Amino acid sequence: MFQHQSFDPVSDRSFAGKHLPLLRAEMKKQNLDGFVIPHDDEYQNEYIPAYAERLMWATGFSGSAGAAVILQDKAVMFTDGRYTLQVRQQADSDYFDYVDITETAPDAWLAENAAKGSRIGYDPMLHATAGVKKLKAAAEKAGFELVAVSQNPVDAAWKDQPAAPLTPAKPHEIEFAGKSSEDKRKEIAAEIAKTGADAALITAPPSVAWLFNIRGADVSRSPLPLGRALLNKDGTATLFIAPEKVGNELPGFLGDAVDVRAESDVGVALQKLGKEGAKVAVDPALAPSKYVDDLKEAGAVIVDMTDPCALPRAAKNDTEVEGAREAHIRDGAAVTKFLHWLDTQAQSGDVDEIRAAQKLESIRAESDDLRDLSFDSISGAGANGALCHYRVSTQSNAPLKPGSLYLIDSGGQYLDGTTDITRTVPIGEPSDEMRDRFTRVLKGHIALATLKFPAGTTGHQIDMIARKPLWDAGLDYDHGTGHGVGSFLGVHEGPQRIAKAPNSQALKPGMILSNEPGYYKANEYGIRIENLIVVTPPKPVPGGEREMMEFETITLAPINLDLVKTDLLTEDERQWLNDYHARVRETLSPLVPAEIKDWFEKATRAV
Amino acid sequence: MFQHQSFDPVSDRSFAGKHLPLLRAEMKKQNLDGFVIPHDDEYQNEYIPAYAERLMWATGFSGSAGAAVILQDKAVMFTDGRYTLQVRQQADSDYFDYVDITETAPDAWLAENAAKGSRIGYDPMLHATAGVKKLKAAAEKAGFELVAVSQNPVDAAWKDQPAAPLTPAKPHEIEFAGKSSEDKRKEIAAEIAKTGADAALITAPPSVAWLFNIRGADVSRSPLPLGRALLNKDGTATLFIAPEKVGNELPGFLGDAVDVRAESDVGVALQKLGKEGAKVAVDPALAPSKYVDDLKEAGAVIVDMTDPCALPRAAKNDTEVEGAREAHIRDGAAVTKFLHWLDTQAQSGDVDEIRAAQKLESIRAESDDLRDLSFDSISGAGANGALCHYRVSTQSNAPLKPGSLYLIDSGGQYLDGTTDITRTVPIGEPSDEMRDRFTRVLKGHIALATLKFPAGTTGHQIDMIARKPLWDAGLDYDHGTGHGVGSFLGVHEGPQRIAKAPNSQALKPGMILSNEPGYYKANEYGIRIENLIVVTPPKPVPGGEREMMEFETITLAPINLDLVKTDLLTEDERQWLNDYHARVRETLSPLVPAEIKDWFEKATRAV
Repeated sequence: MFQHQSFDPVSDRSFAGKHLPLLRAEMKKQNLDGFVIPHDDEYQNEYIPAYAERLMWATGFSGSAGAAVILQDKAVMFTDGRYTLQVRQQADSDYFDYVDITETAPDAWLAENAAKGSRIGYDPMLHATAGVKKLKAAAEKAGFELVAVSQNPVDAAWKDQPAAPLTPAKPHEIEFAGKSSEDKRKEIAAEIAKTGADAALITAPPSVAWLFNIRGADVSRSPLPLGRALLNKDGTATLFIAPEKVGNELPGFLGDAVDVRAESDVGVALQKLGKEGAKVAVDPALAPSKYVDDLKEAGAVIVDMTDPCALPRAAKNDTEVEGAREAHIRDGAAVTKFLHWLDTQAQSGDVDEIRAAQKLESIRAESDDLRDLSFDSISGAGANGALCHYRVSTQSNAPLKPGSLYLIDSGGQYLDGTTDITRTVPIGEPSDEMRDRFTRVLKGHIALATLKFPAGTTGHQIDMIARKPLWDAGLDYDHGTGHGVGSFLGVHEGPQRIAKAPNSQALKPGMILSNEPGYYKANEYGIRIENLIVVTPPKPVPGGEREMMEFETITLAPINLDLVKTDLLTEDERQWLNDYHARVRETLSPLVPAEIKDWFEKATRAV
Repeated sequence: MFQHQSFDPVSDRSFAGKHLPLLRAEMKKQNLDGFVIPHDDEYQNEYIPAYAERLMWATGFSGSAGAAVILQDKAVMFTDGRYTLQVRQQADSDYFDYVDITETAPDAWLAENAAKGSRIGYDPMLHATAGVKKLKAAAEKAGFELVAVSQNPVDAAWKDQPAAPLTPAKPHEIEFAGKSSEDKRKEIAAEIAKTGADAALITAPPSVAWLFNIRGADVSRSPLPLGRALLNKDGTATLFIAPEKVGNELPGFLGDAVDVRAESDVGVALQKLGKEGAKVAVDPALAPSKYVDDLKEAGAVIVDMTDPCALPRAAKNDTEVEGAREAHIRDGAAVTKFLHWLDTQAQSGDVDEIRAAQKLESIRAESDDLRDLSFDSISGAGANGALCHYRVSTQSNAPLKPGSLYLIDSGGQYLDGTTDITRTVPIGEPSDEMRDRFTRVLKGHIALATLKFPAGTTGHQIDMIARKPLWDAGLDYDHGTGHGVGSFLGVHEGPQRIAKAPNSQALKPGMILSNEPGYYKANEYGIRIENLIVVTPPKPVPGGEREMMEFETITLAPINLDLVKTDLLTEDERQWLNDYHARVRETLSPLVPAEIKDWFEKATRAV
């Protein structure tokens, strides 16, 4: 069984006062005037294991993205707009200045602020080569010395640092994966050969998991086995993974063409490639710069190549898409039961965010198929719902009060698919403004759900269609409209994305994305409506000339009708809503208990 | 008075047979196995002077974009989708292979096809450094020798090559420019200083024209003086321009802070900068690579910087916007008279494309304010209208036949503004399909015209809103939705663009763009509705929270109502159309002759 959500605060404002002196002493030992601490771990994971929470240990900041620069007499926190408030609460202002990372990244800050001749360290396992390139440019500009440390001073100073996780890696069977590792390796190997490389170094755990059809549990909420791979242009490969994670069944499952070695042997393998003068493809945005430096030093030729597993991993095969549909039926039934509970048991003000999140977790866990949550739930009542990346703790826990909105963003990990769904429900009577805003968000959601678009279109090009009903009213939301979702893998995956941020990846059939426009009124309430959608193959439009792609919505659960102002919907939008609810009703009815049938009929009624 | 449009074919299929042997002989003299001929001239102009039509001379291809690679035993034409047909008509297949440049550019082709050890030449005045970088990478990959020629072999072989144009450069007065050159130079100089550079080399004629508030007529249809500039970080500058173009009034107008030199002195000036070890900002996408090579060789430090005039030139000041409005009223009245003529005199089938284009030209020329056309009109009847970059010649001239559509895309150059307008009108009775398609194009046009969007939005992000009504029906068009337009400058200018092609330039207040969705049915008809629009400053939306930008439509002329299926329009769309026509009627009435008033009322009636 998966680990239950904990709502204890994971860090506090005392961290900096306790840990910075230890860190600075260690820096002094290493003769460093400064040290850069990214949030990223050695794998460029989004969710990182406890031992890799170096940024949190040093600063108290527990957000999912950011960085710090620690000098001997000064320290600076870099975070984006999502964390403006949180970083000030968690990282003590006695110790830190705060900088918006989207305006000034650590390299740009160092270029302006690092003293000439000073020694600024970084851990070359935690930065990809693209990032180090920027740090080097900053060092050149400001005249400081950039030092790749051989031991991370945080690790040296952190006395009770947890151990690296060692959960077993298991086969992800063909009934879920849809394609054998051998076939995948052959296809990817052909791509590698095309670049002229002899082998590709795959450093991202989701790509390793996808390539070998294995899953693990080294990282909370993502079924990832931490490890690396070398894929040769003939399709043979080496999987580098801690021996403790390799059970008896794994070598047989992987077959003779896959050599299994300890992850600590990566260095030796890179040395060998270098000596052979091999051409090695690496992704400069993902590979630890240490690996690239070591390869070059040993004599290898580096070929820049975007992680060749990323795109085929994102464009799911038919088995994976069918699995996702099944997972969403199962998960949608659980969410529906929870929505019934909310509607009937949580309207009086005596339920709080933690209890609601636990309730949903326990309903999901009734399914034997649930392997994990896909992330810790965002359970936001009232003003907390306006923090789009809110994570409830015992300190922030708020009641679901009548006259407010409650936003719940959650998901499950099943062998056949990963889910991610957000619903917003009124507690008591919603205001007219809440209903207006909800309806605009719904209009945007429907616009994306029903869009037809030609092959070659990127998510960046269509993001605005989900915002238009808000733009019309002088409103907007400050997050992307859709992220990629893995197949029993990470709930956030690239390379596709529907967002204002530039993204050049064309949408491909089989890609799973979220469709999650929102609206957030600071200090009052938050609204988000999120379904997952799958890109369909291009098909002819009756009377048209060009084949068009569309999205198939696979998330199934009622969208709260009390928040919909039907007079703001066009006839087509109303039709979509009614058709969607008819599909929800028909598909989930067999899974919904008899005692909630009446409620379910009403919740999915035609409007 | 400007040069009338000529409809004589400018090249023919015999060019390659006549000219390639001369070129190859010259290449042999220079010991070249191959030579790359881009369409671009020394200024990276879109419209190029006659002497620079090297690609056309060598190949016969007269399109506005493309390239050729000439080997001794093989020749290849590279063009994009617009010219698939035309290149096969003009560049003789006995001599040429044809390659889609968007799939395989000359550098990529050479990387695969050039013989190892062969000598491939290019003219370093015709390629920007960014382009040469790609050629160098190709040379490295294929193992050929890339040779920067000192004399272009086309120029050597082209016996009757026209001379470079030498029309006088004239002041563009402050009443039209809205800001003095001194103020512009100070502002740009501050941007240059920020990069650490001592001076910027400005190589693009529209930027030179904008910076010094001068205009010329070296290039047909664009009031450009060909020349270069060096702008120093203190705001002083050197204007390099052929002495023949400098009249008596120019030096006084430019003032003491501007040194005027012959363009042939650029080399000497770069040598001097090099000797001083100066840091010189250049735009790698615009500057001839020869200049950059010469600077480096002489000892200068190159600072990469996007042409610092491009963005302020694009975001027009209030005077320029007001001028554009005035120019569009004048131009709209001329177009309206032409539309009346079309509707009353050109319905019987005895008018052809050339006569129609000449008629419009003569109506525009009735205004003393017209300085030039802004491009040769696209006058396309029936199937020719489906060629979106069609240029009528005596060979292709077709009658406006009853039962067809006629598309006319045209514009004028006035001291206060540059116009660009497309209207599509039925000749005789339009089919139901034509009306359906026209209405969808109109819906897309209106969607863009009425869009509200937040600061930071790029044209790339909103392009799809103009396509959606076509996408819904399985239709699309293969060109951008909007291009930037200059202020008595080029009718196509960057950096802003509304298109599928990626573009990272945020739309800024004062930017003028076209709004021109279309639909093209091959071999049958073409539809395009084009107005120019100006980006408005962000302003509050009643009841909203965030300021939004919009577009102000400045083109004024009737949109044909016989082609509109009003039942396909939403109430808001119908309202926009009626409001637009009311504005056209009120604004142009005083300029429209009494005898067409009745027609004008009807053409702008509310529907």
